[in-house]
Amino acid sequence: MTFLRNAWYVAAWTQELAAGALLSRTLLDEPVVLYRDADGTARALHDRCPHRFAPLSMGKVCDGGASVQCPYHGLRFDATGACVHNPHGDGAIPKAAKVRAYPIVERWSALWIWMGEPERADPSRIPSFPFNDAADWAIGAGHLAIDGEYELEIDNILDLSHIEFLHPLFSSEAVRRAKVDFEQDGDTVWSKRHMTNDMEAPEFLRQAFQIPPGKPMDRWLHVRWDAPASMALWSGGVTSGLPPEQGVVVPGAHCFTPETAGRTHYFYSISFPRAIGPMAETLAAQNVEALRGPFEREDKPIIEAVSRRMAGADLWDLKPVLLSGDAASVRARRLLKTLIDKETTA
Amino acid sequence: MTFLRNAWYVAAWTQELAAGALLSRTLLDEPVVLYRDADGTARALHDRCPHRFAPLSMGKVCDGGASVQCPYHGLRFDATGACVHNPHGDGAIPKAAKVRAYPIVERWSALWIWMGEPERADPSRIPSFPFNDAADWAIGAGHLAIDGEYELEIDNILDLSHIEFLHPLFSSEAVRRAKVDFEQDGDTVWSKRHMTNDMEAPEFLRQAFQIPPGKPMDRWLHVRWDAPASMALWSGGVTSGLPPEQGVVVPGAHCFTPETAGRTHYFYSISFPRAIGPMAETLAAQNVEALRGPFEREDKPIIEAVSRRMAGADLWDLKPVLLSGDAASVRARRLLKTLIDKETTA
Amino acid sequence: MTFLRNAWYVAAWTQELAAGALLSRTLLDEPVVLYRDADGTARALHDRCPHRFAPLSMGKVCDGGASVQCPYHGLRFDATGACVHNPHGDGAIPKAAKVRAYPIVERWSALWIWMGEPERADPSRIPSFPFNDAADWAIGAGHLAIDGEYELEIDNILDLSHIEFLHPLFSSEAVRRAKVDFEQDGDTVWSKRHMTNDMEAPEFLRQAFQIPPGKPMDRWLHVRWDAPASMALWSGGVTSGLPPEQGVVVPGAHCFTPETAGRTHYFYSISFPRAIGPMAETLAAQNVEALRGPFEREDKPIIEAVSRRMAGADLWDLKPVLLSGDAASVRARRLLKTLIDKETTA
Repeated sequence: MTFLRNAWYVAAWTQELAAGALLSRTLLDEPVVLYRDADGTARALHDRCPHRFAPLSMGKVCDGGASVQCPYHGLRFDATGACVHNPHGDGAIPKAAKVRAYPIVERWSALWIWMGEPERADPSRIPSFPFNDAADWAIGAGHLAIDGEYELEIDNILDLSHIEFLHPLFSSEAVRRAKVDFEQDGDTVWSKRHMTNDMEAPEFLRQAFQIPPGKPMDRWLHVRWDAPASMALWSGGVTSGLPPEQGVVVPGAHCFTPETAGRTHYFYSISFPRAIGPMAETLAAQNVEALRGPFEREDKPIIEAVSRRMAGADLWDLKPVLLSGDAASVRARRLLKTLIDKETTA
Repeated sequence: MTFLRNAWYVAAWTQELAAGALLSRTLLDEPVVLYRDADGTARALHDRCPHRFAPLSMGKVCDGGASVQCPYHGLRFDATGACVHNPHGDGAIPKAAKVRAYPIVERWSALWIWMGEPERADPSRIPSFPFNDAADWAIGAGHLAIDGEYELEIDNILDLSHIEFLHPLFSSEAVRRAKVDFEQDGDTVWSKRHMTNDMEAPEFLRQAFQIPPGKPMDRWLHVRWDAPASMALWSGGVTSGLPPEQGVVVPGAHCFTPETAGRTHYFYSISFPRAIGPMAETLAAQNVEALRGPFEREDKPIIEAVSRRMAGADLWDLKPVLLSGDAASVRARRLLKTLIDKETTA
Repeated sequence: MTFLRNAWYVAAWTQELAAGALLSRTLLDEPVVLYRDADGTARALHDRCPHRFAPLSMGKVCDGGASVQCPYHGLRFDATGACVHNPHGDGAIPKAAKVRAYPIVERWSALWIWMGEPERADPSRIPSFPFNDAADWAIGAGHLAIDGEYELEIDNILDLSHIEFLHPLFSSEAVRRAKVDFEQDGDTVWSKRHMTNDMEAPEFLRQAFQIPPGKPMDRWLHVRWDAPASMALWSGGVTSGLPPEQGVVVPGAHCFTPETAGRTHYFYSISFPRAIGPMAETLAAQNVEALRGPFEREDKPIIEAVSRRMAGADLWDLKPVLLSGDAASVRARRLLKTLIDKETTA
C-alpha cells in the first residue's frame, strides 16, 4: 500500500510518552522509537540500530535524554540520529553510523510525526484541534489498534448513518430521518448531520446537552476530515426552538495512522471545557472510557470483518454500491488518492 | 485449488440452523450466510454486503424471515439476494444492490448447497442418504473442522485399511486379513471390506451386532463415495454362518466440504432405526459422541500432519507409493479430477 | 535460504533420545525422525512415509528397534530407509517404498546429522568437543528454539562485546576495556577476549574461578567457530599475576542448527570435570539452568527482534555499520558463504 508520506500523522498522545521512556510504534510500515530529550521535547528515530539492527526501543535513554543507547552493543544516537558514542575499540564513530530522525511536533496534546521528506515538514500544516489545548480543556484520550485499513476508519466516521444500526443506544426516530450535508474546502471535507425534535434521545445525552425534561432537542454531528487521516467531531445539542449557539457542544478527535497496510492506530479523544470547573476532568475521564465500549465492541469488530471480507482488495475494484451517506467519504478517498498519486509521481 | 462447483455440498446439518439465526460458513473459499425464511425454508446468501462489504451474518433476520439486515448501514436483502430496503436518503434501492443467492435444499437432515451455476442446480443429483430420514431414523450428527485438504478425508474413508493402525480399539486378526473390493458405477465409487470369523471384536461391537457369547462374527464395512465428497458408510455384522441379511447394519454419513484449499468441514452422522423404539435416540446420541473421540484424536491429527507434510503439493506430484488399499481412493481422485477438468474447460 | 548441506549439524543431545522413542525435528527445512535401533545406535530417517506422507514420528519403534512403523497404514522401514513390511494385500513391498536415511553419529554427547550427500559424510570432520566426553566430564545440556536466522546466533557468540550491554550481571570496567583478538585457521575462526585486573566481577564468578578475597582477577573468553555452526566457548579466570595455566576454565558448547530459514535450534552446554568429584554433576546441573535465564530472557529476545527488523533481508544488503567486535563474525560469515557457494555451484 502506498501511503501519503509528506503529511502529519499522530504518533502518540502526549500523555503516552513519559520522560526517560522509549515508545516503539510501527507507523506507515516503519518502526519508530519515540522519546523525550533533556528538554522534554519529543523525538523520533528509526527504531533500528545501523550496526546489527536491534530495536533502539529495547535500549535506554541516556545522558539525561541527550541520546538513546542500543540494547545490543551500546552505540548511542542523538536526536538528529547521529551516533555520538561507540564504546568499542578506539571509540571512533563510523561515518555511516546514523539513523533516520523524523520531524515530530507536540501540539494539541498529541505527537505529530512527518514520515516524508524532512525539509518539507511544515508544522503550520498540522490540522487545528483547539479543543485539545490542555490549558483550556480537560481531555480524555485513548488508543486502539484496529486490524483494518485506515481508510475504512475514515469512511466510518465520515458516514455516521451507521449509528442507527451499529450503536442502537444512540439511535432514535430523529437519527433515522437526519438531514445530511457535506462540503469540501481544499484538502478538508466536512460531513454534517442534523437531527431535529428528538424526543427519544437517551437520558444521559439529554443531561449532557442540558435539555429540560419533556422538551424535544435538536442534535447535530459535524465531522471534519483533513488529509490524510485527522478528524474532528463536534457533537452538539440544544432544546428545540433555541438557536444552536445556545446549545452545548462536545468536541473530540478521531485520528488514524496506518501501522501497516492492514492495521491502524486509532487515536480518539473527547474534551470538556475547564471553564465548567473540576467536573471537566471527571467528564473527560468518564466519557473517554464510555466511548471505548462502542469503539471496541461495535465499530472495531465490523471494520475488522469488512477488512477480512475485502481481503486486501481496493475498494473501487470491488465496485461498492454507493448510498447517500457515502458522499463525504467518497470525496475524501478521491482527494487522498489524488494527493498520493501526486506524491508518488513527483 | 480448483473445486468442483456444479455439485451439491453439505453446508450444515438441519439441526445447526435455528429459525431467526444467521450461520456463517466459508465454503469453497466463499463466505456464505445461512438462515431460515418465514416458512422455515433454509436460504443461503453471499455473506458480504455489496455496499461496504460487512458480513450479513453479523446483522439480523428481519421481517419474520423475509429479509436479512446488514449490521453496518441497515440494507436488507431477501432470499433471492435482492436489496428490499434502503433506510437512507430517499430510500431508493440502487440497481447493483444485490448479493448472490445460492441454491440450497434441505434433505437427509442436511442443508445441501450448490456453489456453481444456479440454473444447473438439480436436487435430484443429491446423493441418497435414506438412513438420514428423520421420520424413520434417529440420527446423531456432528461437525468437525479439519486443517487439511478434503481429498485427504475422502482417501481416509475409502481406505479403511488404516483402522488396524489408527484405531486399535477396532482392530483384530480378522480386520488384518480383511478382503477388500472396490467398484465404480458412474460417478459413484464403492469400497467394501469383509472380515470373517472374528473372535476378537470388542464386546461393545458384539453387543451392537447381537452376536451370542462364544460365537464368531462376520463383519463388513461398505463405503459409498459420490463426487465430490459425499460418503455413506454401512457397518454390518452377523453371527458367522448366518446370511448377512440376518445381521445388523449401522449406517452413517461422512460428508466433506472444502472451507478453503487447506481446511475442510467434516459432517458425520450415525443412524439407528426408530423401529427399535426409544432406544434409537439414545443409541444415536451415544454413538455420535463416541465417534467424535477417534475422529478428533486419531484421524484428525494424522490427516492434519499429512497435510503439513504435503505442504500444499498435489498428491501425484509427490509420487506416492500405492498399496492395495488405495484402489478405491485412486479411482475417486481420478474421477473427481476429470469432473473438475471438464468444468473448468467448459 | 541456501544451507550448507554437506556438513555435520547437531540434531539433538544424546540425552534427548531415549530407546524406543521417536523424536521429530525439522532440520534445514526437512522433517527428520530420530530413534535408536536394537543396538541403541541413533538413526535418522526422513519423517514422511512415502505412501500417504504421514510423519513416521507419530508411529512407533518396532521389532526391538529394527524398524519404525508408520502410524497410518503400518508400513515399516529399517535404518537404511528401506520398507521391510507391508501388512496389506499380498504383502509385496513396492520398489519405491523407501525413505531417505541420514548419516548420524553420536559423539561428544550429541547426535550429529549429515543432511547432504551420504557418501561424503566423514565423521572425522565433526568438530572436537572433548569437554563433552561424558566419561571425564559432567555435562549440563539445554535446547532452545529461536525465531531468528542461525547466522545471527553465530554473530552473537563470536562478538561477546554485547555482554556489557545485554548481560549487565557479567559486566564490569574490565569487561569494557577487554582486549579482543581473532584468528582464522582453515574453516575455523577464533574470537578471544582478555580482561585483566578485574575487581568488579560478581562473587559467584570469583568463587567459580577460586579467586582469593580482595584480589583482582584476570578473565578470558575464547570462542571457536567451526563451519557451519558449531561453537565452543572456554571461560577462564585466574588470580591476577598468576599464569593462566593455574586458572580455572569452564568450557561449553553453543551449536546451532537451522530449523527453517528464520528459526534455529540452539543446543548449549556447560561442563565440569569429573575429577573434582560428585560436585561436578551438581555444578553442571546448576549452571546449565543458570545459563538458560540470560539466553532466554536477554539473548533470545534481542536476536528475535533483530530478525524481525531485518525482515528476511541479507545482512550485507542492509549495509550494516561494522564495529571492531565484528571482525570474527564477518570472517565466519564470509567463510560460510564461500562454502555454500562452492557447494551449490559444484
